[in-house]
Amino acid sequence: MHRTHTCGELTIGNLGQEVILSGWVQKSRDLGGTTFIDMRDRYGITQLVVNTDDADDLRTKVKDLGREFVIKVKGTVLERSNKNPKIATGDIEIKVSDLEILNVAKLPPFMIEDETDGGDELRMRYRYLDLRRNPVRNNLILRHKMAQEIRKYLDAEGFLEVETPVLIKSTPEGARDFVVPSRMNPGEFYALPQSPQTFKQLLMVSGFDRYFQIVKCFRDEDLRADRQPEFTQIDCEMAFIEQEDILNMFEGLTRHMFKNVKGLEFEDFPRMDYADAMRLYGSDKPDIRFGMQFVELKNSTLPVDEAPLLWRGGGEAVFPVFDNAEFVVGINAKGAAHYTRKQLDELTDFIKRPQIGATGLIYMRHNEDGTLKSSVDKFYDEEQLKKWSAAFATEPGDLVLVLAGAKDRARKQLNELRLEMGNRLGLRDKNKFAPLWVIDFPLLEWDEETERYHAMHHPFTSPKPEDIALLDTHPGDVRANAYDLVINGTEIGGGSIRIHDRKLQSIMFKHLGFTPEEAQKQFGFLLEAFEYGAPPHGGIAFGFDRLVSILAGLDTIRDVIAFPKNNSGRDVMIDSPSTIDDKQKKELYIETTV
Amino acid sequence: MHRTHTCGELTIGNLGQEVILSGWVQKSRDLGGTTFIDMRDRYGITQLVVNTDDADDLRTKVKDLGREFVIKVKGTVLERSNKNPKIATGDIEIKVSDLEILNVAKLPPFMIEDETDGGDELRMRYRYLDLRRNPVRNNLILRHKMAQEIRKYLDAEGFLEVETPVLIKSTPEGARDFVVPSRMNPGEFYALPQSPQTFKQLLMVSGFDRYFQIVKCFRDEDLRADRQPEFTQIDCEMAFIEQEDILNMFEGLTRHMFKNVKGLEFEDFPRMDYADAMRLYGSDKPDIRFGMQFVELKNSTLPVDEAPLLWRGGGEAVFPVFDNAEFVVGINAKGAAHYTRKQLDELTDFIKRPQIGATGLIYMRHNEDGTLKSSVDKFYDEEQLKKWSAAFATEPGDLVLVLAGAKDRARKQLNELRLEMGNRLGLRDKNKFAPLWVIDFPLLEWDEETERYHAMHHPFTSPKPEDIALLDTHPGDVRANAYDLVINGTEIGGGSIRIHDRKLQSIMFKHLGFTPEEAQKQFGFLLEAFEYGAPPHGGIAFGFDRLVSILAGLDTIRDVIAFPKNNSGRDVMIDSPSTIDDKQKKELYIETTV
Repeated sequence: MHRTHTCGELTIGNLGQEVILSGWVQKSRDLGGTTFIDMRDRYGITQLVVNTDDADDLRTKVKDLGREFVIKVKGTVLERSNKNPKIATGDIEIKVSDLEILNVAKLPPFMIEDETDGGDELRMRYRYLDLRRNPVRNNLILRHKMAQEIRKYLDAEGFLEVETPVLIKSTPEGARDFVVPSRMNPGEFYALPQSPQTFKQLLMVSGFDRYFQIVKCFRDEDLRADRQPEFTQIDCEMAFIEQEDILNMFEGLTRHMFKNVKGLEFEDFPRMDYADAMRLYGSDKPDIRFGMQFVELKNSTLPVDEAPLLWRGGGEAVFPVFDNAEFVVGINAKGAAHYTRKQLDELTDFIKRPQIGATGLIYMRHNEDGTLKSSVDKFYDEEQLKKWSAAFATEPGDLVLVLAGAKDRARKQLNELRLEMGNRLGLRDKNKFAPLWVIDFPLLEWDEETERYHAMHHPFTSPKPEDIALLDTHPGDVRANAYDLVINGTEIGGGSIRIHDRKLQSIMFKHLGFTPEEAQKQFGFLLEAFEYGAPPHGGIAFGFDRLVSILAGLDTIRDVIAFPKNNSGRDVMIDSPSTIDDKQKKELYIETTV
Repeated sequence: MHRTHTCGELTIGNLGQEVILSGWVQKSRDLGGTTFIDMRDRYGITQLVVNTDDADDLRTKVKDLGREFVIKVKGTVLERSNKNPKIATGDIEIKVSDLEILNVAKLPPFMIEDETDGGDELRMRYRYLDLRRNPVRNNLILRHKMAQEIRKYLDAEGFLEVETPVLIKSTPEGARDFVVPSRMNPGEFYALPQSPQTFKQLLMVSGFDRYFQIVKCFRDEDLRADRQPEFTQIDCEMAFIEQEDILNMFEGLTRHMFKNVKGLEFEDFPRMDYADAMRLYGSDKPDIRFGMQFVELKNSTLPVDEAPLLWRGGGEAVFPVFDNAEFVVGINAKGAAHYTRKQLDELTDFIKRPQIGATGLIYMRHNEDGTLKSSVDKFYDEEQLKKWSAAFATEPGDLVLVLAGAKDRARKQLNELRLEMGNRLGLRDKNKFAPLWVIDFPLLEWDEETERYHAMHHPFTSPKPEDIALLDTHPGDVRANAYDLVINGTEIGGGSIRIHDRKLQSIMFKHLGFTPEEAQKQFGFLLEAFEYGAPPHGGIAFGFDRLVSILAGLDTIRDVIAFPKNNSGRDVMIDSPSTIDDKQKKELYIETTV
């Protein structure tokens, strides 16, 4: 027997018991005749005491012990004199009567501690050691718990988990597929799924009516810090429902998960139109943990009588930047009036970075003494600044930050600035969670490159019935029955009601620029399936890695994945991908060109 | 709103209620002025009654209805005059006041009935329609329930589900890998996992101590009726355990599953040595739903004084087939003495089929009148046959069937014959479940082709400590700490205790014919991980598709998979695999050679 207890469970209630424990040597300290060993396993740390004067045998073994050795000890549970209230077993220690070295260990290349000295590369290379560290292990425990709770909720709601195939068919639309050459079908390839979208819709046609799957998906895209070539999706679909049913069902799921995993309860999730999200936050995934909503000073895209006129100076002079801009918009960074010249310069540098691309930052301080002071005092008198103050509802101590430019771009830029100010002012607390439904997404988005409209979600997304008439005249204004769940400024799920009517689907394809032949070629089997009695249906998919990372309070998904890949798509631990034998290639009817 | 209830839930308790139901038209019968419609959804069938004399509108709609149309009806729950006790809703019907056609349907290419007229090819081509049939849907519901119960049990036992990567590294050993060309690493390939074996062992090194995963695995092998290129495995591993812990834990899992899914309870699972399984059943996965154990009449591989001598005739004549054979072995097919000449000829044909390859069948009838009559009466007198009768414990009405040949081959052949007789005599009841642990598998098996020993399980399987000394002298006799769980003659799970000691691992590699360099090349990262403190560990993996098919009482796994592939690895529904664009190939640095 290797253990009677784990290293995390013995307490004062076990005093006097004979126990057997197994685990890793976290550290050992020799205090002349007595050695204290911290023994670690998945469940905790227990202090061992070895009186090395007692037995030659024990003395020799203890002398040999190094960090990360695997040992098994027999001993008695004693009360500790210097208790450690920080750990669950801190009241006791084990007086060791027998010790066995189950395995030796080389010195790890980095410290197995909560705060490690290992860099990212080293930690990835020895991921199995990194996984011994509490923070990383706890992320995976959280991930397990979340998956369990998600399944529990969906099962209770009558959802069936159905496994869809991994070896499917490549489609030219969308992101790049990973492909798999077929040995039995020379010259042909499978593709790995980017999502089980078509299969879940087929399951609705099959009458499965409540489907889910926690499933690996694949996208061969250039990787950023926070993207992985394989990722996990919580994929869901329902039939005989309307948008409201989906929102309620999956708000329930999110609520259940937070309650059972984090012990947190929520009011009804707020809902926001896409249009309002863009207007008030410049983003379709606003972080509503804090306010700092946008105030428009100028908006030339509105009819003249609805347009705000706060951009105009009161006097003769006109600030040319505002005069020339389509759009002028700002935020009230509450309490930031104390920002120094240097800090304001930093902000200017921040928004001028190429990935943001603003040209300049205008500010107005509402000083503690009540005076208003702006970077454009030359053009605005106090009367005018008071109007700004009113529009932004400033109080003494506030700082107004204003950008000008083309509408969409200025909104995007101010969104970045708002988030940056949120960070700087400590408003983005990782232990606070602010869920939000963003609804009424546009059905179509204009693509500059191909000069045509594309489906914003996918070509099967249903337009709002009342907007269908706009398809011919104002396609960009047609709203979809599409929705995203956003938490803390991150999109963690999105979905839509699907079109189940053949006629409407044909109209949609036409508007997306598909000929009937093209539509048939790309979506033939799904369209055919739809001819045999497709029910009204819709669904949603959640990015599980992202969801876990948010609950774990992490900025990236890498540490909620047991064995992640680096930015070149490599697993540096197993050294993959790698070359394969010529024999393998020959069997697969392929050759490499490098 | 699309429904207030499903088509499976209304009973006499709902009489008089106004309800809304949605579903598919199973069939409709017009009885002049009144139309009866069976409406179906995932949950059941409800009878609708439409009085077509009442309203022109209803009459028109009902006239248009075809099979598999999707409809929504509003109506009142009434008591049926001719009740149907076979269905849950058989006491009621819905008097329809309003009917809406949600979608039309073309006539399906086969009947959506429990017994369909669709052939395999057609059913695969229109899998989404096949999935509407009760038997197929019920298999997937069973699959869902089993997965849920498995996760519930393992979670309660402290196992963590950890997702291991799908894009891994190709290894030359074992079955053929599916590979995935890497765009970002020109000329290199990922492989899809045949199992997460190395990753689960790494997780043990990481201290995860109780891991599981229900996970897709992939093998590019030639497909038989009952193999799929992608299949699902319940993959488990534990640390700080011994074989006994694993057997108990996963016997518990199996028990839990049967109890909660099938309502069945079991005694302790019997255990059988591999050696006994081969001796008594000629198979390492005996079907113990029935007896019919092997009786050896001759075994030249045993020492002379232990060898059974029943093969020798009593008189002068010697039956040359038995005389020449290494091994003579038989079974008592209880109650089959009535077998006619024709039936016995069929059995002879059965065992002579190329895939079985026996040369002839000897039989002895224990007639109802007590007389014994054999096909080798020329060589055996009654005295001798009485000895056979005693050895096989025959009673009047029994039939003894005997084969002769080389030991291993004769055992395999008789195993086939035993299973065939089990089928013919109705002893393999699909509603009866007989689990069995087969333990003490040999560590090594001799491979004729490469003329060396191979690991029977895998190179990390631990030999039994007491057998290690035999490695040098009798490698074929060394038993492993390896075990299989067998149900009804099908291996549904298998595993082993792993080697965690570097020295023993080196010895094993030597015996498997690896040079240290080869071992390093193939298993380098795992061996390196083992140097940093590997705990004693072991595990097991279950074939989930197979397990579901057994509980579903099916002979193949195809109908427990939502979207299976055919024997050429094709999904004929989505027509995959398929060719890909030259642009795609170019990006992946590959060319096809056909």
